[in-house]
Amino acid sequence: MNRGLLIVLSGPSGVGKGTVCTALRGKLPELIYSVSATSRQPREGERDGVNYFFKTREQFQDMIARDALLEHAEYVGNYYGTPREFVEKTLAEGKDIILEIEVQGAIKVKEKFPEGVFVFLLPPSLNELRQRIVGRGTETQATIDHRLSVAIEEMNLLYHYDYAVVNDQIDSACSRISSIITAEHCKRERFLHELFQELKPITAGENAER
Amino acid sequence: MNRGLLIVLSGPSGVGKGTVCTALRGKLPELIYSVSATSRQPREGERDGVNYFFKTREQFQDMIARDALLEHAEYVGNYYGTPREFVEKTLAEGKDIILEIEVQGAIKVKEKFPEGVFVFLLPPSLNELRQRIVGRGTETQATIDHRLSVAIEEMNLLYHYDYAVVNDQIDSACSRISSIITAEHCKRERFLHELFQELKPITAGENAER
Repeated sequence: MNRGLLIVLSGPSGVGKGTVCTALRGKLPELIYSVSATSRQPREGERDGVNYFFKTREQFQDMIARDALLEHAEYVGNYYGTPREFVEKTLAEGKDIILEIEVQGAIKVKEKFPEGVFVFLLPPSLNELRQRIVGRGTETQATIDHRLSVAIEEMNLLYHYDYAVVNDQIDSACSRISSIITAEHCKRERFLHELFQELKPITAGENAER
Repeated sequence: MNRGLLIVLSGPSGVGKGTVCTALRGKLPELIYSVSATSRQPREGERDGVNYFFKTREQFQDMIARDALLEHAEYVGNYYGTPREFVEKTLAEGKDIILEIEVQGAIKVKEKFPEGVFVFLLPPSLNELRQRIVGRGTETQATIDHRLSVAIEEMNLLYHYDYAVVNDQIDSACSRISSIITAEHCKRERFLHELFQELKPITAGENAER
């Protein structure tokens, strides 16, 4: 059986990774979602193993020590990370798994999973990105300027990725990512093994007949 | 403007390249078809520049001498080949072009166009391929055996290609090739140029404001 594909969906802050990922999962129900681990408290309605794997700080630090995370980071005193075991298990079962993650995390995942399919979500234009950041309407100008400069820096990480998808419309971005997954399954490497498995018994049978 | 993509559709004899190519062109009307040149006589209903570019033997030999063909071969006393100029012009206009060709010809095209997207059409199984070859019902057993062994040899050329597409159903094979074309357009290289073009004026403008 072929291993599944690890699809890493990333892109600058504010580009709409979460929205696109949710829409894509609706379109491709067989695509498994990589659930993050966190040491923060569950919020109202959040379920363990669905929204996050909820861990204590000690449990999380133990996972770090055991190298049980593909990447992790700390924000505002809470840990967030990607459990390695769930990803490995899903791929070994021949299923595709999608990981939605910010750009720095994606780069760390690439070090451990260079065979992953790294998709960078782009805003239709930098002005559009600026408008999305400003459009939240809850931030000061300094915060907006800072976020925008972070977004531009993040954009420069594009060259680490395999594909770039413009998020002009959610449907069409999803459809392009879905095409990328299909195309990756068609990459010849994935067929060679199966084909040679099939050729062997047939050619052996033909020789036996002569 | 980005250059178009050269899509090379190939695969073993009898796999259904022509049928899939025709169906794909129906699905993607914007995809340009690379018309072959030939020195054979036009048949009833064939039009110059549509089915083939019809040439005299002398004209064809002149094209060979001028390196005006991406590949060529001679069958039963007639020349067949792929005119380079039409492919180059189409790509320069930013349009995608598809070339349907047997496997040896595709390998020659790859030497001149390594940046092409090489798609290998596979039968669902070797038995299926055998049935398609036998199914024509007009050949002797010796001819069938020969064709099958040629097909197996051709199949071994798979490793020169970028993608393998199983022709289990025409619609689904077309849909996978269409996904490959979309994915290839998303390959990051195609976006880097445009993105940096856009970044330049914006960052310059921001500096000017400060």
